[in-house]
Amino acid sequence: MALPSTDTSRYDNTLAVIRTLRDQGPVARVDLGALNGISSATVTSISAELLQQGLITERPPETPRPSGRGRPKTLVELNPQAACVVCIKLSINEIQLVVGDFSGQVRHSEHHAVTTLALSADDLETLLDEKISTVCAQQLNEFQRLAGICLAVQGVVSSQSGTIIWSPALSFRNAPISARLAERFHCSVLLENDANCIASVLAAKPDYKDCPNLVVIMLGYGIGMSVLINGVPYLGANGSAAEFGHSKYQPGGALCACGRRGCIEAYASDYALYRAASDHLALPSGDSAHPSEQQMQTLTQQALNGDPAMQRIYAEAGRALGYGIANILALFNPDLVLITGSGVRGFDAMQAAMHHAIDDALVAELRGTTRIESCAWDRDMTCMGGIAMALHATDAQALSMSQASSVS
Amino acid sequence: MALPSTDTSRYDNTLAVIRTLRDQGPVARVDLGALNGISSATVTSISAELLQQGLITERPPETPRPSGRGRPKTLVELNPQAACVVCIKLSINEIQLVVGDFSGQVRHSEHHAVTTLALSADDLETLLDEKISTVCAQQLNEFQRLAGICLAVQGVVSSQSGTIIWSPALSFRNAPISARLAERFHCSVLLENDANCIASVLAAKPDYKDCPNLVVIMLGYGIGMSVLINGVPYLGANGSAAEFGHSKYQPGGALCACGRRGCIEAYASDYALYRAASDHLALPSGDSAHPSEQQMQTLTQQALNGDPAMQRIYAEAGRALGYGIANILALFNPDLVLITGSGVRGFDAMQAAMHHAIDDALVAELRGTTRIESCAWDRDMTCMGGIAMALHATDAQALSMSQASSVS
Repeated sequence: MALPSTDTSRYDNTLAVIRTLRDQGPVARVDLGALNGISSATVTSISAELLQQGLITERPPETPRPSGRGRPKTLVELNPQAACVVCIKLSINEIQLVVGDFSGQVRHSEHHAVTTLALSADDLETLLDEKISTVCAQQLNEFQRLAGICLAVQGVVSSQSGTIIWSPALSFRNAPISARLAERFHCSVLLENDANCIASVLAAKPDYKDCPNLVVIMLGYGIGMSVLINGVPYLGANGSAAEFGHSKYQPGGALCACGRRGCIEAYASDYALYRAASDHLALPSGDSAHPSEQQMQTLTQQALNGDPAMQRIYAEAGRALGYGIANILALFNPDLVLITGSGVRGFDAMQAAMHHAIDDALVAELRGTTRIESCAWDRDMTCMGGIAMALHATDAQALSMSQASSVS
Repeated sequence: MALPSTDTSRYDNTLAVIRTLRDQGPVARVDLGALNGISSATVTSISAELLQQGLITERPPETPRPSGRGRPKTLVELNPQAACVVCIKLSINEIQLVVGDFSGQVRHSEHHAVTTLALSADDLETLLDEKISTVCAQQLNEFQRLAGICLAVQGVVSSQSGTIIWSPALSFRNAPISARLAERFHCSVLLENDANCIASVLAAKPDYKDCPNLVVIMLGYGIGMSVLINGVPYLGANGSAAEFGHSKYQPGGALCACGRRGCIEAYASDYALYRAASDHLALPSGDSAHPSEQQMQTLTQQALNGDPAMQRIYAEAGRALGYGIANILALFNPDLVLITGSGVRGFDAMQAAMHHAIDDALVAELRGTTRIESCAWDRDMTCMGGIAMALHATDAQALSMSQASSVS
């Protein structure tokens, strides 16, 4: 049943207050009102309720007012212990678990080497169950409750149905993982594409706030993408949109990890670069399909030091990336294309060929004014985004629980 | 200044009533209320105001109620004479002018052969001025006023600034045409990409109502596209999104009309098919860059009749189209891809190769469940869409004029 309109606006205002406190840290009540266009009476009433529910706390300002006049304003802030969320990032051969508090800060992070491609769907469920249980046993006593879980996965997911449709990290398909975790941990479970988590972090940065149509390309083992349209991730009909890595550079070209030929990923991903390099160089033996960070850094350094074979390989990767980005410009005409991911380590060796390919592919009118920039990689970015998205998704739930308890 | 909320909802309800009458034709007041969730008292008050302003008329139902009981319901309908709009479709070597009445029906249509590529921006302005003036002199006496003009143009336009950025029909660029026409004709001027006009007509059809993410590809002299996301045309940062024809099939491949190489258009457009055919056949002489409809029908017929060279050319066009659509599926994951435009005449000769290329390009998980269909071409579809969009854009203006006159 729909709430009466005054309850709806009370609810929206309460959500706005919580999100402002999460974005800005401690804020005085009067500023909370001004920032959200809410009357001071309403802010006072909302903050009284949130204080009583333990979702926020009060603290005095650290310094008196510079003018020396007036009473220092009391600041309110989120109570970080009010709840926590767990974000699990699932990528090839690695699982990262991060615990975030109610204010959005990372409180704990751990990495596990796991041969992900050897897992069955049941194995993955058991593994996640075990890892989340362990982290909860260690961390949860600091928090009032576990509000939610975010699972950030490389590949195609349906956020709506909570199903991993297809991931390069996994050998099985169509696994309805969210429902099982929700049942096990009695909390909401959000399933997200890893690139969308990263895009949500980047889109919040002041540098990119004028870019409502933002494309984020993630270079790495595979190549991922997130497309934000008016700031919202575009998912498509069943969650498989923005699969830039499998758009085409050369029909019938190099073999891709997906099994088809000529994908951008088959030229510009880590495994593609390593495969091309192994034709030219005596590389230390290893798993050529999953080169290590150290191996990739060695290759990149050789290209940057002027090794002609390595330069050609990175230039061809840049050309594939450039032709792919040309299609993105022609089809999405975004404000900004941001290139990041661990593979951005090799961007300096690719970018001249990439820009050349874009100019070669598109007339100026279709090239447009889109900015194309790279952005330093932070391996925690995915989980930071996942925590923010999980908190955002569970705020509504937190409020409905509080409302139920205040009614009872 | 924002209207007080009761005025805002009155205004929104009035717009909803007008649009329901345009979509459905004559409707009883009680049904207008039910269809829009408006109380009968409000519908009575709104329709009284619209009647007084001459925007709607009353008519008795044509037959008594089948039950024979009760008084027959009086229907209200839009007054078609309340206003008219003019849509001008500008394509290579042709200008079409259509007059639509306030109910959205086409009242007049005319075509003019014009060597569009020989026009300067001033020439185009003079030509449009002359053609619109003539059609208004002939038609406008039937209507209370000219509410708006829609200019539907092949190519890249900025609807926001009213500028034709780049059109294959024109040799000049960046022409701010809307402001000049608005000044000349004292009405609102809407500048639209022709494919968006067509998509707006198709999206309204019952067959496609479950397809909020709809891609329409227009084959013809060039290749255009419209992408509707949640039913709204996606325009990108400056209006040059959805340029499918200039996404790439083969880097460094066939020469495109844009001046670059390897675009989908350079394989699957009319001029590309005709150019490829002229290498194999002794075709009647003519303007190979702008083959006529009759010439294209001859080529298509030869392919369908089993001529091996023509079959190869149409299959290669189908393959280019298929690889292009594979990128659309990977990047947009739409509910439906609809292929139309005059070039759909050759679709039967292309489609086997097209489907083969899509399967070749994408694994099943990325191919997804997107329907890919063709749709018969109607050369008046662009203008029908332009009239609907112009009326939609000017309804708000009609109401504010009526409100101003009812206040004065």
